[in-house]
Amino acid sequence: CKQRSLHGPSPVTTFGPKACMLQNPHAVMHIQDPASQRLTWNKPPKSVLVIKKIQDASLLQPFKELCVFLTEKSIIVYVERKVLADPAIQADESFAAIIQKFCTFREDLDDISNRVDFIICLGGDGTLLYASSLFQKSVPPVMAFHLGSLGFLTPFNFDTYQSQVTQIIEGNAAIILRSRLRVVKESREKKARVDEKGIIMTNGDSEGSRKVLNEVVVDRGPSSYLSNVDLFLDGHLITTVQGDGVIVSTPTGSTAYAVAAGASMIHPNVPAIMITPICPHSLSFRPIVVPAGVELKIMLSRDSRNTAWVSFDGRKRQEICHGDNITITTSCFPIPSICFRDPVNDWFESLTQCLHWNVRKKQNYLCSKEDVF
Amino acid sequence: CKQRSLHGPSPVTTFGPKACMLQNPHAVMHIQDPASQRLTWNKPPKSVLVIKKIQDASLLQPFKELCVFLTEKSIIVYVERKVLADPAIQADESFAAIIQKFCTFREDLDDISNRVDFIICLGGDGTLLYASSLFQKSVPPVMAFHLGSLGFLTPFNFDTYQSQVTQIIEGNAAIILRSRLRVVKESREKKARVDEKGIIMTNGDSEGSRKVLNEVVVDRGPSSYLSNVDLFLDGHLITTVQGDGVIVSTPTGSTAYAVAAGASMIHPNVPAIMITPICPHSLSFRPIVVPAGVELKIMLSRDSRNTAWVSFDGRKRQEICHGDNITITTSCFPIPSICFRDPVNDWFESLTQCLHWNVRKKQNYLCSKEDVF
Amino acid sequence: CKQRSLHGPSPVTTFGPKACMLQNPHAVMHIQDPASQRLTWNKPPKSVLVIKKIQDASLLQPFKELCVFLTEKSIIVYVERKVLADPAIQADESFAAIIQKFCTFREDLDDISNRVDFIICLGGDGTLLYASSLFQKSVPPVMAFHLGSLGFLTPFNFDTYQSQVTQIIEGNAAIILRSRLRVVKESREKKARVDEKGIIMTNGDSEGSRKVLNEVVVDRGPSSYLSNVDLFLDGHLITTVQGDGVIVSTPTGSTAYAVAAGASMIHPNVPAIMITPICPHSLSFRPIVVPAGVELKIMLSRDSRNTAWVSFDGRKRQEICHGDNITITTSCFPIPSICFRDPVNDWFESLTQCLHWNVRKKQNYLCSKEDVF
Amino acid sequence: CKQRSLHGPSPVTTFGPKACMLQNPHAVMHIQDPASQRLTWNKPPKSVLVIKKIQDASLLQPFKELCVFLTEKSIIVYVERKVLADPAIQADESFAAIIQKFCTFREDLDDISNRVDFIICLGGDGTLLYASSLFQKSVPPVMAFHLGSLGFLTPFNFDTYQSQVTQIIEGNAAIILRSRLRVVKESREKKARVDEKGIIMTNGDSEGSRKVLNEVVVDRGPSSYLSNVDLFLDGHLITTVQGDGVIVSTPTGSTAYAVAAGASMIHPNVPAIMITPICPHSLSFRPIVVPAGVELKIMLSRDSRNTAWVSFDGRKRQEICHGDNITITTSCFPIPSICFRDPVNDWFESLTQCLHWNVRKKQNYLCSKEDVF
Repeated sequence: CKQRSLHGPSPVTTFGPKACMLQNPHAVMHIQDPASQRLTWNKPPKSVLVIKKIQDASLLQPFKELCVFLTEKSIIVYVERKVLADPAIQADESFAAIIQKFCTFREDLDDISNRVDFIICLGGDGTLLYASSLFQKSVPPVMAFHLGSLGFLTPFNFDTYQSQVTQIIEGNAAIILRSRLRVVKESREKKARVDEKGIIMTNGDSEGSRKVLNEVVVDRGPSSYLSNVDLFLDGHLITTVQGDGVIVSTPTGSTAYAVAAGASMIHPNVPAIMITPICPHSLSFRPIVVPAGVELKIMLSRDSRNTAWVSFDGRKRQEICHGDNITITTSCFPIPSICFRDPVNDWFESLTQCLHWNVRKKQNYLCSKEDVF
Repeated sequence: CKQRSLHGPSPVTTFGPKACMLQNPHAVMHIQDPASQRLTWNKPPKSVLVIKKIQDASLLQPFKELCVFLTEKSIIVYVERKVLADPAIQADESFAAIIQKFCTFREDLDDISNRVDFIICLGGDGTLLYASSLFQKSVPPVMAFHLGSLGFLTPFNFDTYQSQVTQIIEGNAAIILRSRLRVVKESREKKARVDEKGIIMTNGDSEGSRKVLNEVVVDRGPSSYLSNVDLFLDGHLITTVQGDGVIVSTPTGSTAYAVAAGASMIHPNVPAIMITPICPHSLSFRPIVVPAGVELKIMLSRDSRNTAWVSFDGRKRQEICHGDNITITTSCFPIPSICFRDPVNDWFESLTQCLHWNVRKKQNYLCSKEDVF
Repeated sequence: CKQRSLHGPSPVTTFGPKACMLQNPHAVMHIQDPASQRLTWNKPPKSVLVIKKIQDASLLQPFKELCVFLTEKSIIVYVERKVLADPAIQADESFAAIIQKFCTFREDLDDISNRVDFIICLGGDGTLLYASSLFQKSVPPVMAFHLGSLGFLTPFNFDTYQSQVTQIIEGNAAIILRSRLRVVKESREKKARVDEKGIIMTNGDSEGSRKVLNEVVVDRGPSSYLSNVDLFLDGHLITTVQGDGVIVSTPTGSTAYAVAAGASMIHPNVPAIMITPICPHSLSFRPIVVPAGVELKIMLSRDSRNTAWVSFDGRKRQEICHGDNITITTSCFPIPSICFRDPVNDWFESLTQCLHWNVRKKQNYLCSKEDVF
Repeated sequence: CKQRSLHGPSPVTTFGPKACMLQNPHAVMHIQDPASQRLTWNKPPKSVLVIKKIQDASLLQPFKELCVFLTEKSIIVYVERKVLADPAIQADESFAAIIQKFCTFREDLDDISNRVDFIICLGGDGTLLYASSLFQKSVPPVMAFHLGSLGFLTPFNFDTYQSQVTQIIEGNAAIILRSRLRVVKESREKKARVDEKGIIMTNGDSEGSRKVLNEVVVDRGPSSYLSNVDLFLDGHLITTVQGDGVIVSTPTGSTAYAVAAGASMIHPNVPAIMITPICPHSLSFRPIVVPAGVELKIMLSRDSRNTAWVSFDGRKRQEICHGDNITITTSCFPIPSICFRDPVNDWFESLTQCLHWNVRKKQNYLCSKEDVF
């Protein structure tokens, strides 16, 4: 990725040591300090993608309210077709007129990457991971609502959605750029075929790579034993993983699976990649944090007896066989996530609410060590 | 300690691999399964030691109420003299008549070890540690009240103290025997003197040893650097500690300082000693748990440049110099701690209340990994 | 199980809070302190079961040597039939005469539980786990050789096998009793069937229960998500596990999978059961250690959406569905494992060799904090 | 600090989110990717500061050899006066002539900040910490030799010092910029005095601030109890520390004291600050990593009963009282540390050598779980 300036006054940002560019037709993120990025619009946003968790009855009413509200503001609402297939939505005749105005699309079939000005998520951190999977390149700014309790990725409370959405439309909001990892799985077979035909097969963004917002996990899958897995950094073998597996995560993902495996928690504004072993055999295999600019590669060790499995943000599980390799770099396309307050306060609030970070009794055990007389 | 049967139908219990005896004039603890020890009395208890945290105004009223209640039941109340020195107590004329009936004593001067049938503590875990320090040999059963929130060692809520105390007097309660460590600090000077005179100096329970209920800590004290400290088990050097120090704790102490240093939590009924390094230099220096029957010894390593410091349940800090050694064994005199419900429920209740053990959000991060579509 | 002292056909030992009895036709373990249990014979041992890891060519020569040595000492050698099926053994004509003298048996078909005086294992910790699975009730003393590097369960070096084996035959050795867990999996279907027929189905040791030497693991198996799993102790719900799973291990197992999941290490002589969460969602879900005498039960939580999987010492993986439950207690039949030196030295030696416990550089980082001037 | 591109007397580099500039009369570090910074000279270096650990006899011969070598290359050697006060150096008559050519200086009295082109350290990580303390603003490139085993900060082996030093002089080397923290301790008294006089007292770099390369530690000092300590980030109270203390470290410092307290290890090229609690009371107080651009502030909590102590890279311990505050930011003056190979390989080599990171037995415990039959 090279740094270019484009689209008039538009969206240039650098992310990570290997600077790369965020392109977005309307939003402009002027960046001095990553801690103070703000969302501004060149022209008012006209379209919004609404992502709703399906099969959750509690979300129906908020979803309808929101869509009515957006439509009344003359915003074009994009909704995935299967969301509308919900019988509870189909049965609601009063909502039928609103649905008429929606633009609908199908996952993996219709390309909406350049048609959406921003995204609204309803229903938990999973909706943001899903949004991430829909946009493999540039991602529009995302505003995420939790309906129940605060999530790591869903800072907004739906109670005041009207004023909150209005404020975003008016372009007044702090933004945090959440880095993603670009993951390419290359299999031995593919490479073999290339050699025969003499054609160099490229794994471009469109086909071979996936973006993850939280983490890539390589683990033992259904087997009781993990193969030994080799980990390379910028081409050098740095260690071999023996245990249940290894997590390669973004700072955003450091508070997800990685924290359960013992990692420290990294603020999403730190340009870094975290490598966390899962139940390693070695007592001294502590998690490490490397610069965002490196290239990681994971392969089965030559002498390993079992295969391993890879998954992407917890989905699309597949086997890794001898000769396959997983290449991981920081993606040029982070997710611009709209803050409720700001990147610092939002993060610490989520640590406290979601992980009970350093929540403790006031009268604690150390009182027990103090002299009573 | 040998196992003897004594005092008629009285108090024999085994504790730890090296069986030893708990002697107590009135209480009888019939023990089959450590999980089901119960307090029974040969004859009704006649005297109680009341321990109150001083300099805590909120305890005054409960203290007075309790003393009146006990006196009305013709129980002789023992109170330490300095508790009564509190001006707030002196000023209360209506309480003066009650005080007249008290037996008072002074710490370190008066021996009450055989005069008290049971103990009531008011005011936090520290009161139980203090009770422990008062009884270097056999300890009467202890009933401990928390006034604010539940403590590890203070399971009883004062709100219903009348019925609770009555129940104890009637001899209906579960007991947990909390093991203590017997710690002897022997200094080079002492040993040298012995050699010269040809007299073997014994460090009996009465003079040289201390009992701790939570832990012995050896650390770097005010220095920035810990000496290397050698750790011996049954005479064998098992490892050298480099770091901020080392904690040798009872199972009871596993939820105090040790847990802060990374230890697993051990139920007080497990006959074991826990060894936990404090900020060790070595990544692989995980805490270990050894049988209660072993003898541990701690010394400065021969080549260490700094001294170290030892403390006992957080008190009586003193320096350890070259040639000194700290010997630690499981004491024959555990603390019979009266349970609110039973040893299992009380412990898990305290883990939850005091340490928020496995308290978590219902809608947690893993939701974020689940498919929304 | 009561504690008796005896010779004759006699071995009696108590283990864990709920004392139980180890019966073994020839060996007598006189026990005062668990740390000083010793093997003695009422009459010389006559039969030995030799367990060899199959498909490992490096073990062939040691295996043959050992068998010849034992045969020459007029010891009857028991070998599993499939060990002899190895073509490399069949092809060795000089060994054929020795084989003639063997007693052979087939796993799960022939009962050798009362015919073997002691066991010799060749080839890694797995052989001892296998030996454990062969003897669901009383286990003969086990002498385990490592061929390469020291294992946790294989303290003997094969280089001096002749003198070592001779010493065991002469009855001169320290013993450590390694507790096992008795695990019963009861499925909803079974219980339902019982109700219909009105017959109470008992899960006796012979059929329904399994013994594990290291651990029972309940995990998410091939799924990305663990069901919520409820954990009961003596009938009380103590916590719900959310994460990758939970390990219930013996002290022996504390240095296996549990240590990889963050547990402290427990000496095998401590009568305890360890409960260790695997990558728990809650930051405060620290491992806990409970007395050996408790009964644990694991079930899927009522509201869990996925199933879970259980495995026994890493084998026999099977699914747990709603209504199934896993009941775990300390078995009355521990494994008498013959020590190379003694229970304390052997354990610390294995911590150092197998886990590099507290192995560290002499000139460490703290030097960096010291003044150079 | 703004980003400029230049040669001449020129060194420009950006470091951390709040970009700042490194100025150095001769060295030029062209920076695209932090992972590939290289040292080049505008004109050949003429002067070198040699730092030697004192009171270490093993360093005398290497020190003399190095000085002779440098002098022969017409490099001006700077040495601190007290190094030469060593009787062993004074006694060496053959070395007297060399000493004549040295430029000497006294710590805290003579300013050599603009007179040294690069620095050579002999003798352990402490020498680099000492070098850091000598240069409170811009720091010349540092080449650090270990004499015994590899250190985190001392990658060069002295055996081949001649070719290595020659290569540096010729300007062929990789550089890693190690960030430092700028720490200002402001006491209540000072602030009070300012208020009275109406004069705003500035704490400029020259007087009030210290630079640390590893960490600032706030701990309980000689006391048994830590005061509660409040931690602010960009003006917001983010948490209160209860425990033994808190470590605020650079990525370089993440492998020093912080790793002993449980932190993950951060590559020095990651622009971040790590906050690690020391033995926190709360089980959920995991270490956190925040962007290098933030401002941290530490104060005693209003209701804390004890004071705390602060130290800087393990030195200059001083008390913190009520009203005092410690302000910490990333310094604009990192240490350009010359790599032996490159920032990635050097770091992983030091993890392995100094911390035994993920060093493990080949035949590990999981073998024990595998079927033997």
